[in-house]
Amino acid sequence: MNPLVKDLGEFGLIEQLRRYQRARPGLVAGIGDDAAVMRGRPGWYTLFTTDMLVEGVHFLPGTDPYALGRKAMAVNVSDIAAMGGLPTFAVVALGVPPAASVHAVQRLYEGLSDEGAASGAAVVGGDTVRAPVLTISVALLGEVEEGRLLLRSGALVGDRVCVTHRLGDAAAGLILLQRPDLPVPADTRTRLWHRHTRPTPRLEAGRELSQGLATAAIDLSDGLAGDLRRLCAASGVGAIIDEAALPISDDVRRVAQAAGLDPLALALGGGEDYELLFTMSRYRTGTHVLPGSGTTYTVIGEIVDASQGVMLRRRDGELQPLPAGGFQHF
Amino acid sequence: MNPLVKDLGEFGLIEQLRRYQRARPGLVAGIGDDAAVMRGRPGWYTLFTTDMLVEGVHFLPGTDPYALGRKAMAVNVSDIAAMGGLPTFAVVALGVPPAASVHAVQRLYEGLSDEGAASGAAVVGGDTVRAPVLTISVALLGEVEEGRLLLRSGALVGDRVCVTHRLGDAAAGLILLQRPDLPVPADTRTRLWHRHTRPTPRLEAGRELSQGLATAAIDLSDGLAGDLRRLCAASGVGAIIDEAALPISDDVRRVAQAAGLDPLALALGGGEDYELLFTMSRYRTGTHVLPGSGTTYTVIGEIVDASQGVMLRRRDGELQPLPAGGFQHF
Repeated sequence: MNPLVKDLGEFGLIEQLRRYQRARPGLVAGIGDDAAVMRGRPGWYTLFTTDMLVEGVHFLPGTDPYALGRKAMAVNVSDIAAMGGLPTFAVVALGVPPAASVHAVQRLYEGLSDEGAASGAAVVGGDTVRAPVLTISVALLGEVEEGRLLLRSGALVGDRVCVTHRLGDAAAGLILLQRPDLPVPADTRTRLWHRHTRPTPRLEAGRELSQGLATAAIDLSDGLAGDLRRLCAASGVGAIIDEAALPISDDVRRVAQAAGLDPLALALGGGEDYELLFTMSRYRTGTHVLPGSGTTYTVIGEIVDASQGVMLRRRDGELQPLPAGGFQHF
Repeated sequence: MNPLVKDLGEFGLIEQLRRYQRARPGLVAGIGDDAAVMRGRPGWYTLFTTDMLVEGVHFLPGTDPYALGRKAMAVNVSDIAAMGGLPTFAVVALGVPPAASVHAVQRLYEGLSDEGAASGAAVVGGDTVRAPVLTISVALLGEVEEGRLLLRSGALVGDRVCVTHRLGDAAAGLILLQRPDLPVPADTRTRLWHRHTRPTPRLEAGRELSQGLATAAIDLSDGLAGDLRRLCAASGVGAIIDEAALPISDDVRRVAQAAGLDPLALALGGGEDYELLFTMSRYRTGTHVLPGSGTTYTVIGEIVDASQGVMLRRRDGELQPLPAGGFQHF
């Protein structure tokens, strides 16, 4: 019996690896949240996260290197945003095929630097090595006031489940990249391409939510279904999501129709939206605006006892387990 | 004109990329040293470094995953050692082929965790993604007291140039891995294999040197010739290295003879020794022991004016430019 990585899956693997983490003075929270949390300067925690993007897995060969650089930084910024924090410093390890052009690598670095600067972070070091395919590994530091740390584990029964902006845009954009023949309007195509290739980390929204507004948060990298399960598992709760409440754009519905897909599948299983999924104790429904950042958010369900599981309430009122979905690496 | 990465070379590329670094409050020293330096807790600097290892580039397919995990962490620890610091926290981004065994990945993580623990660092987070070849990217934090920071830029004319332990062991070990048929004694083979596959970061030596002993330091990852040039460039000085003083073991001489190579080439150009190359103002020659850590070091030359260049004094007294050598990625 020698199981392979592809049999175990990404999250099974992460679970396996968590047991090698050791305690250390100064460590507040390690593997299992969007970023690790350490004691920082007085009154602050330091946050630490990493994400790797691989050509042929996370992006297609020939992807615009500037956009790729921005995205590689943005997905890390999104992790810091989900903790309520502010990005500070990044290092970048780059694996580059020898036949890559210097110009492409420069543009990639420019994208990394610009996206970092837009979120207050500076790229301060790195490693550049040969690799068979373009591989970008960013490690990002951040910080958050001790009283404003957002974890996945803070959700309580009765909390509302909310999500910023919309769901499924990035997944629909990816479909359009893979199937340029699909009959959808040009402006829909452009909007969704941008949502896939240029994700917007919800940094200001995260800062606003960390002022006592949210009880728990996670960023949506692998799709609502998978990431909600992770938030619920960390908090020891269940959740009921209302299908009718999910913020799905007309653009996504158009792509789903043209591709013969259920828009619900894109909203629940589509990865890379990099929106914030969060819980709050305030009782409300509908779509609202965070007044400080202007970011919209929608109440999509409620936190229930763990024994009720993680469920989807269909439009007809029927409850069914939330489909697993989500992007699995292996 | 669209130059390729392989035309520019690794160091040309790093030079290109440095210009995308932006200033940020709290940043003390960025790209261009073994680790970036930021303001940390009161009285301390925070250090931040990253190194990526790629299958088929840095290690052969089938390499023992535990040793690989230790090495991936050790090369990062070596960067912190060269700054006089102490490692604290690491994150690991891992690219894994789907057909890898879970056991191999577990052993890799165990090696990372054990080597981290041996140097006082905890692995606190990571990312695990699919990749065509095994790719390990470690980002490591460290800290150093403000008065003890070692930089590449501190060497002064008249300083001695020193190196810990010996030169060329790792390069000779790599030759033995690639040419198992070479007629060398079994104990030589074992010793040098270990020096290649299990580098010892000179953490305690770095701590000792940072107590006012060394004026500048760099870790030997790419070979003495290349790394000395980098230290000299950062310090704005030249250097003269004495061939007769270079600490080359009998093991390395045996391998060089069996392989028909000049042991000098292994000592000057062989990468991955992960020894510390440092300068000190104390006038001495020969091999000595750092009393606190018990690490040996050898005085191999002296710092001279930049106009004299970086030279090798042959055994006959003749001066010649130090051969460029060193491991080039592209």
